[in-house]
Amino acid sequence: MTHVIGVDLGGTKTAAGVVSESGEVLMSGTIPTLNRTGGEAILDATAALVSGLVERAADAGLTASGVGVGSAGVIDAAAGTVVSATDAILGWTGTKLVAGLSARVGLPVRTVNDVHAHALGEAWLGAAAGTDSSLMVAFGTGVGGSFVLNGSPFLGHRFVGGHVGHFASPYAVVDGNPLPCVCGGFGHVEAVASGPAIHAAYLRFGGLASEAADTRGVFAIAQGNHDAVSGVAATAGAAPGAVVAARAAVGLGAKAAGQALGGLINILDPEVVVVSGGLADAGELWWKPMETALRQELLAPLASVPVVRATLGNTAAIVGAAKLVLK
Amino acid sequence: MTHVIGVDLGGTKTAAGVVSESGEVLMSGTIPTLNRTGGEAILDATAALVSGLVERAADAGLTASGVGVGSAGVIDAAAGTVVSATDAILGWTGTKLVAGLSARVGLPVRTVNDVHAHALGEAWLGAAAGTDSSLMVAFGTGVGGSFVLNGSPFLGHRFVGGHVGHFASPYAVVDGNPLPCVCGGFGHVEAVASGPAIHAAYLRFGGLASEAADTRGVFAIAQGNHDAVSGVAATAGAAPGAVVAARAAVGLGAKAAGQALGGLINILDPEVVVVSGGLADAGELWWKPMETALRQELLAPLASVPVVRATLGNTAAIVGAAKLVLK
Repeated sequence: MTHVIGVDLGGTKTAAGVVSESGEVLMSGTIPTLNRTGGEAILDATAALVSGLVERAADAGLTASGVGVGSAGVIDAAAGTVVSATDAILGWTGTKLVAGLSARVGLPVRTVNDVHAHALGEAWLGAAAGTDSSLMVAFGTGVGGSFVLNGSPFLGHRFVGGHVGHFASPYAVVDGNPLPCVCGGFGHVEAVASGPAIHAAYLRFGGLASEAADTRGVFAIAQGNHDAVSGVAATAGAAPGAVVAARAAVGLGAKAAGQALGGLINILDPEVVVVSGGLADAGELWWKPMETALRQELLAPLASVPVVRATLGNTAAIVGAAKLVLK
Repeated sequence: MTHVIGVDLGGTKTAAGVVSESGEVLMSGTIPTLNRTGGEAILDATAALVSGLVERAADAGLTASGVGVGSAGVIDAAAGTVVSATDAILGWTGTKLVAGLSARVGLPVRTVNDVHAHALGEAWLGAAAGTDSSLMVAFGTGVGGSFVLNGSPFLGHRFVGGHVGHFASPYAVVDGNPLPCVCGGFGHVEAVASGPAIHAAYLRFGGLASEAADTRGVFAIAQGNHDAVSGVAATAGAAPGAVVAARAAVGLGAKAAGQALGGLINILDPEVVVVSGGLADAGELWWKPMETALRQELLAPLASVPVVRATLGNTAAIVGAAKLVLK
């Protein structure tokens, strides 16, 4: 029976696991991504992580036959190189990921972008298992997605496909001015529907950074009020104005997310839609207005499209990456 | 050598041709679509058109081996049925297109939606010939599109894929209210970027219906002023206010179209983008602001994506439909 190593190489940490043919993660390990030291150092550290798992697998009588890597950045899956990456991983752009890692570990390596690996994992074993086509969209620090068709994520001609956070959203306009987006553009979905965008909206709506320093804080305040409505005490110390600002910010982000997803469904008509990322896990306060806005967008023949939460959590990208070398 | 019949069945007319293996249209014919008399009458008339072409082909010593139909409406390409159609073709919904036409003409029949047939034609022989992936979007009475990947239009799980006119556009909001869309939704791209939407904007901007009764009239007025700038006399009778309204309306529709296309490119990363429909043929007054808005939306690695006009005109859907039975 074949075993392979699946690697999820993100901006802050790199996780890897020994994955069986059926997608079971038998052993795993995590290291910080050396995001300030450049591509070669990252490859060295990743190779050490992979080789350690290969040895642990061997100790258990298992042979690892290949390595699949889901990596942050725009990844040329054919050449096995990093086309571009943000400053979150300095020096990653241009790295020969497949050649460099393969030479270090002595095994065949394949790679795709981490969001595609994530979607592939969910399509193989998670929320979209058994479907012919699925659209996964993750709402978190950014907004990204992947459309998986017959078991393959659609990568795009220049490997840029799946950048579903970078089309215009009517909600990303404030006083007639489109909000700046991290991509350098303006008025995109990501500029209003990402986690940081929700925190920015909270501040714009009069919330104080001293009461919520980040998106998690905004949700805590909003949720506190929500709990108060249902009879539980509000979050201690949150002023009424902060609660109003927090709930408005979460509602805005959720509506923008749902409207964008609905439009994507009209364009792609996937069998199932998988919603992932930190915001999808934040509870009904985000999910309900998101799904309401989503359903409002749909063309009539799409009314019953299933919209489900991702189920694999952090292992999705590991098993999805493993699947690349399990075919 | 194989010959087949390609049919483009639209809301007002049905065109068909005898198509060679290499995509040459050797003979053709056109009839009005019986859009008030129901599915069976349409099938009868279409069968007569097809059989006439089969006979003409036989007279020339050519044998037609099958029929491909690109039809208006949401088409279940697997079952060969019309899932839904607008009131533009009464009684078309539910028609067993493949079974009914095949029984009448005695030849194998395959069908897809007409926009997919159109895109398939452009991908085979037109503006996207030789590419692995292309996105075609048509801006005319409506806004529709098709993504062709490795020679097959992507149809979607419920055959609704390609409805690229039905996602939100920031330009489809007037005084804070999203414009109604023909799909029943609000604020969609089609509600601001279609031909009728440009005429509606002209009226909203103070233009008079007596000066421009339709979209063509709006372009005539806008173009007249454009010509005046370059030294040619303005359209006789168009008041200065009408010119301002007409140019603003064309500019709005074009910017909305370009912004939407740019977002779609970020999502799909096609090798080439083909722009089709009456608005794409209306000249630089629409194309220039469209392409400027499109380029403004693009992520950096997509900056050089080719955006080209469709080249096959009315034969695109005929040859694309023919291709369905030429594999």
